[in-house]
Amino acid sequence: MKDDTFYMNLALQQAEIAAENDEVPVGALLLLADGTEVLSHNAPISLHDASAHAEMRVIREACRISENYRLTGSTLYVTLEPCLMCAGAIVHARIGRVVYGAGDPKTGAVASLYEVLSDERLNHQPEVTGGVLADQCGDLLKGFFRSRRQKA
Amino acid sequence: MKDDTFYMNLALQQAEIAAENDEVPVGALLLLADGTEVLSHNAPISLHDASAHAEMRVIREACRISENYRLTGSTLYVTLEPCLMCAGAIVHARIGRVVYGAGDPKTGAVASLYEVLSDERLNHQPEVTGGVLADQCGDLLKGFFRSRRQKA
Repeated sequence: MKDDTFYMNLALQQAEIAAENDEVPVGALLLLADGTEVLSHNAPISLHDASAHAEMRVIREACRISENYRLTGSTLYVTLEPCLMCAGAIVHARIGRVVYGAGDPKTGAVASLYEVLSDERLNHQPEVTGGVLADQCGDLLKGFFRSRRQKA
Repeated sequence: MKDDTFYMNLALQQAEIAAENDEVPVGALLLLADGTEVLSHNAPISLHDASAHAEMRVIREACRISENYRLTGSTLYVTLEPCLMCAGAIVHARIGRVVYGAGDPKTGAVASLYEVLSDERLNHQPEVTGGVLADQCGDLLKGFFRSRRQKA
């Protein structure tokens, strides 16, 4: 069944690709209102683009293929709680629902440092579900940073 | 003399291009540490990209030409106070200084709704100067929205 766990598993596969590329392992899947699935992974270092978080990449790609700067009715799956930049883009794109895995106590802007997606002063508030496959999503990140510290 | 007013005037010319394209008139200039100037304007509707704010476009382009996801020592000039998305990207890109024109009481994330760029929980705080050519920057926006209401 194509439920939240199903889609988060696909986002996790994307996060694994990021790790293989020595990028912080975060993956995302954007499910558009027409059922189209757009997948991507974090890649700022390899793409030379400070904005190339997994969420930004699926949002930009979905806008491109939809020929629309708004993605009404879409659902974003992402393995890590979005940061300020990505939360802002989610609001701009009018994404309908956001499902994330692990919380991010350092830079999370949905529930940790900020609560951007429920800020009623902004002109859109998506539905939010956190903690889907949180352990798997978090373990991938922890393993990545542990291995990087060992290399350093 | 190439001072803040000089660069903000160039950003204003970019904002005028946005207005001519029926986009909210915001313009930006990113001055890199080596003196390179990267200019762009707001274009989410015409580019089909929710993230295509003027700031994001100059950051992405500067990263591309620098082949670096960090823009240490750069100064960003932008005609309007950055939003959450752009403020987040400014932090990620490690931009050294941000100079903006008009404040944005609705979505500004530097001094109005949020104070992202001075949040010491995040791992970078650029120097900030607001209010440079604020009247010209704000008048361009007000004129744009007035003319759009008249058309509607």
